[in-house]
Amino acid sequence: MTDLATRVWNHRWKIDPIVRSLIDTDFYKLLMCQSVFRNKPQTQVTFSLINRSKHVPLAKLIDEGELREQLDHVRSLSLTRGESTWMRGNTFYGKRQMFRPDFMEWFENLRLPPYHLERKGDQYELTFEGNWPEVMLWEIPALAILMELRGRAILDRMGRFELQVLYARAMTKIWEKITDLRDLDGLRIADFGTRRRHSHLWQDWCVQAMVEGLGDKFTGTSNCLIAMKRDLEAVGTNAHELPMVYSALASDDAALARAPYDVLADWHEEHSGNLRIILPDTYGTKGFLDRAPDWLAGWTGIRIDSGDPATGAETAINWWKSRGEDPREKLVIFSDGLDVAKIEELHRQFSGRVRVSFGWGTLLTNDFRGLVEDDALAPFSLVCKAVAADGKPTVKLSDNPEKAMGPEDEIARYKRVFGVGEQEAMEVVV
Amino acid sequence: MTDLATRVWNHRWKIDPIVRSLIDTDFYKLLMCQSVFRNKPQTQVTFSLINRSKHVPLAKLIDEGELREQLDHVRSLSLTRGESTWMRGNTFYGKRQMFRPDFMEWFENLRLPPYHLERKGDQYELTFEGNWPEVMLWEIPALAILMELRGRAILDRMGRFELQVLYARAMTKIWEKITDLRDLDGLRIADFGTRRRHSHLWQDWCVQAMVEGLGDKFTGTSNCLIAMKRDLEAVGTNAHELPMVYSALASDDAALARAPYDVLADWHEEHSGNLRIILPDTYGTKGFLDRAPDWLAGWTGIRIDSGDPATGAETAINWWKSRGEDPREKLVIFSDGLDVAKIEELHRQFSGRVRVSFGWGTLLTNDFRGLVEDDALAPFSLVCKAVAADGKPTVKLSDNPEKAMGPEDEIARYKRVFGVGEQEAMEVVV
Repeated sequence: MTDLATRVWNHRWKIDPIVRSLIDTDFYKLLMCQSVFRNKPQTQVTFSLINRSKHVPLAKLIDEGELREQLDHVRSLSLTRGESTWMRGNTFYGKRQMFRPDFMEWFENLRLPPYHLERKGDQYELTFEGNWPEVMLWEIPALAILMELRGRAILDRMGRFELQVLYARAMTKIWEKITDLRDLDGLRIADFGTRRRHSHLWQDWCVQAMVEGLGDKFTGTSNCLIAMKRDLEAVGTNAHELPMVYSALASDDAALARAPYDVLADWHEEHSGNLRIILPDTYGTKGFLDRAPDWLAGWTGIRIDSGDPATGAETAINWWKSRGEDPREKLVIFSDGLDVAKIEELHRQFSGRVRVSFGWGTLLTNDFRGLVEDDALAPFSLVCKAVAADGKPTVKLSDNPEKAMGPEDEIARYKRVFGVGEQEAMEVVV
Repeated sequence: MTDLATRVWNHRWKIDPIVRSLIDTDFYKLLMCQSVFRNKPQTQVTFSLINRSKHVPLAKLIDEGELREQLDHVRSLSLTRGESTWMRGNTFYGKRQMFRPDFMEWFENLRLPPYHLERKGDQYELTFEGNWPEVMLWEIPALAILMELRGRAILDRMGRFELQVLYARAMTKIWEKITDLRDLDGLRIADFGTRRRHSHLWQDWCVQAMVEGLGDKFTGTSNCLIAMKRDLEAVGTNAHELPMVYSALASDDAALARAPYDVLADWHEEHSGNLRIILPDTYGTKGFLDRAPDWLAGWTGIRIDSGDPATGAETAINWWKSRGEDPREKLVIFSDGLDVAKIEELHRQFSGRVRVSFGWGTLLTNDFRGLVEDDALAPFSLVCKAVAADGKPTVKLSDNPEKAMGPEDEIARYKRVFGVGEQEAMEVVV
């Protein structure tokens, strides 16, 4: 029996909204948002979409009107009572009231600010400007919308059973990965795949498959909405945007050199335990650690997000040893371009030497590689980054020059200030 | 939104019935039933389940109580008004009123007769006794129930996502077969997979996938309920049970030698065109054709259901030529143990020489091979056959001695009467 009311209701939707909740976003965005809300609420930033995969002609694949409808829908969203209750009442990383009342009050009244969209050849220029705490929340929905609309452009041409078989194949693929991972003793792995997921429902499926397939080895999801709905841990700490914006705001080279540590000093004051995770690669991991103050060596762990991950982990281990810390008590979180073979390799290589954990992103939630003609559903490298703060451009160097961004002269200046020399270029997976 | 009434209703079912309609059966059973109803309504027959795959311990896998509940449910079924309307009003093989009013009236009042069930070691003895037109209708539901209950015994141990991935894999498998078949020019293929299907819903899925994937190359389904629901052609002609019972009833060797032709004489009177399909292998194809009356050479085609299919088709072609018929106007239907490679091979070998058609059975509707541990969902060779008629045992020789059945002394007698010598044994696929 069809429920008549449901059917009528469903047909009343003008669009099929891709993002239906303000907390359908990464947990670390909310943590960072609260931090920014407290420390830099008036900073004006510009976020911009950057499609690193120029061969994907987004503006040819995605109708501008549909894109606007989806972005407009996000602007119509506000925090629901249940979502607010979850954020206020839930325990995150073992802590109650992670989100403070003043922040929650602000968030409950928030609507996302306007966007600027313009077609430029086969690509879209999509930017967001305004107060940092508001603008930063556009990153994940913007990416998720573009990723999913590009997918829909391909799916729209397929037959009903062809579609079902497509999902059947994708499910089989993920399940085979999960059963491979099940064999790894002591594995700890989380879903980090919100931003470049195939779709919300697909991410939700993948997360639930991880729950059934991996049991306790699955440690949570970065997606707050899924964490709430599925009663899972919401996980994540902080990202490059904090040091990038802090650095852009620095008044001179001396302040610039201090900026990445200033960020973590603010974080140190606010968070403890497993939330004290260093993300060291914004301006080169090696130099960052060499010049780090001793209190940073006392932090719980490090997240390796660019460059060769094994090299990054060895650098961290040597650094901890040089500061008199026992690496076996430290946490190393790998989160860059992971898939099963790499996870197995890193797990083998570092288990026992440090506490190892994985944040599995795009190849968990969007591995549609090889499933349609011309590989038209393969994930691609799309980011949405802070490109300016208070009128000054931001810079990212990373441990992989392929991931670097910013104006050339500023990149040169940052390299000088942070003592970054020759770097090894690596293909950006996703 | 959940429809509350639906949910309550669904939870009220005491069992999940495997067979929910008297026309969830093969079309040829209904055609044969009408023929028997007209020609031999009083013949007493015994049908019996025969598990040729002794390594599948049905009585260990399937709870006797559950099996009884399913069989009892079939006994509670009667033809619905819509089903009756479809049978009375629909066109079958281009003919209106295929089913005559007296037969329909009988069928509308029919309930299936009792069954006899007894555990014998690791197997079940399951027999049906009574008037031929009633008892014969047990064959397909009995097989479908045992097949599906054996599958459920395996599925019951699996997790939710494990199950979803199982079906994902099975769907992918079928879809790959269908896309391979799509490339065959002039292919004509039908679903013959009711009896040993994985389940009704799965057969329905496979049929719909064939519709989308093969278009006009898919010529219909043997399953009446699916044909009705999906608005497809119901296909099928006749089976071994007709010559087997007619032969058992023969009073002496001379009558026995005539019996297989007497059957077809009755059929000839009743049906024309594409329903005039010879099934020649019951007592050896070669001898059957050599001794056939000339009017049989005028029939539309032949169905090859045992032995090496290419050999069978060549035998038929030579026979038609020897009787002055043009084989290019004749139809050869292959229906034994087919899968894609064999279909491609036979299609290549015989297209243009005869009109070729395929009845694809178990490896369409139950190819779960290799999908679970110990291959516990692989289809196996289960049949339900007429074993006696008016107290006399039936015999089948077939073109493959592995498919022969009947008491040894009777087999010897039949071999003598039908002049069957040495036969090549072939593994029975399903």
